[in-house]
Amino acid sequence: MPQLPRTPRTTPRRKADRVSHDLEAIAAVLDETLVVHVGLVQDGQPLVLPLNAWRVGGHLYFHLARGSRLAQAMAAGAELCVTATVLDGLVLARSAMHHSMNYRSVMLFGVAHEVTDEAEKTQVLTALVDHVVPGRASQVRPPEPKEVAVTAVFALPVAEASLKARSGPPVDRPDDRDRPVAAGVVPLTLARGTLEPD
Amino acid sequence: MPQLPRTPRTTPRRKADRVSHDLEAIAAVLDETLVVHVGLVQDGQPLVLPLNAWRVGGHLYFHLARGSRLAQAMAAGAELCVTATVLDGLVLARSAMHHSMNYRSVMLFGVAHEVTDEAEKTQVLTALVDHVVPGRASQVRPPEPKEVAVTAVFALPVAEASLKARSGPPVDRPDDRDRPVAAGVVPLTLARGTLEPD
Repeated sequence: MPQLPRTPRTTPRRKADRVSHDLEAIAAVLDETLVVHVGLVQDGQPLVLPLNAWRVGGHLYFHLARGSRLAQAMAAGAELCVTATVLDGLVLARSAMHHSMNYRSVMLFGVAHEVTDEAEKTQVLTALVDHVVPGRASQVRPPEPKEVAVTAVFALPVAEASLKARSGPPVDRPDDRDRPVAAGVVPLTLARGTLEPD
Repeated sequence: MPQLPRTPRTTPRRKADRVSHDLEAIAAVLDETLVVHVGLVQDGQPLVLPLNAWRVGGHLYFHLARGSRLAQAMAAGAELCVTATVLDGLVLARSAMHHSMNYRSVMLFGVAHEVTDEAEKTQVLTALVDHVVPGRASQVRPPEPKEVAVTAVFALPVAEASLKARSGPPVDRPDDRDRPVAAGVVPLTLARGTLEPD
């Protein structure tokens, strides 16, 4: 890419909506994500479904009830677009139109392959439990073969994923900066409360 | 719907993956949501993008840079599938395969219409600020006509939306219930930290 001359800035630096293929940053988003949104085309129409997803090595995995419509579509080779979004903060500016959000969003395209080997499926399904609560898989009853059999597991390679993100403070117009209103970033986190025992 | 005879249950009640069209519950999900996932078909491929969205009355609104690819697609009448998902809890069961999540997910289909009236656009864009931080719109500089002009605003009617949700405790197999492991629901909330001033 050609080097552009640096221009002097009077507004704060913002890393805005940059697209990257940084695999470490992509893995971090997938590892923080509990639910992704899976898009596919059915009868010419878009369909976007929330699905549990978890990464093991270079693949992102999904589990579905065997025989469900989505499992059938994936098995039939449907092209997928999978988007995982982490919200990092509310960007509160001094003008309505400069408000924004800090986020990281990973997008994967491709055709998922079904994991059919029972041992691999069991291992991957067990990893989901540890993805949600690290260390828990060894405390609960492991999957039984008949439970594994009724579950379809699909995998998408992470290698081709892209990451789009915004970070940093608001970018206010210079003539707005003296407006007497609090501005900055309100951090967002998906907080876990205390276990409510059943 | 025919009344089904009640069967005795030995496992806890669970409201599982039920689909409803309860407009009040649908509005609650949309009002809790900062970012939705918008699906559309481009060149026969699915595309799923995270977008800010907010409800005013019977419509869900999006804003886009005028001239962006997505704004062009929406203006050209692309069929959309918009999914808004709120994660309510991790459902921790006593076996790996009975783990689940409590969630509420709203799905809307349709073709968005562009809001072109400047006064209506300004009002709707101002409402976004109050959607993110109630009361903030009156504290910041209001949108100026040229800011409104470079922003495209689209609306989808909420009336046809559907809601899919799970709530309640884990459903363990009776012979798993004596396993000595903590089980129940860990509540999830998108927590807001303290403003980091810029």
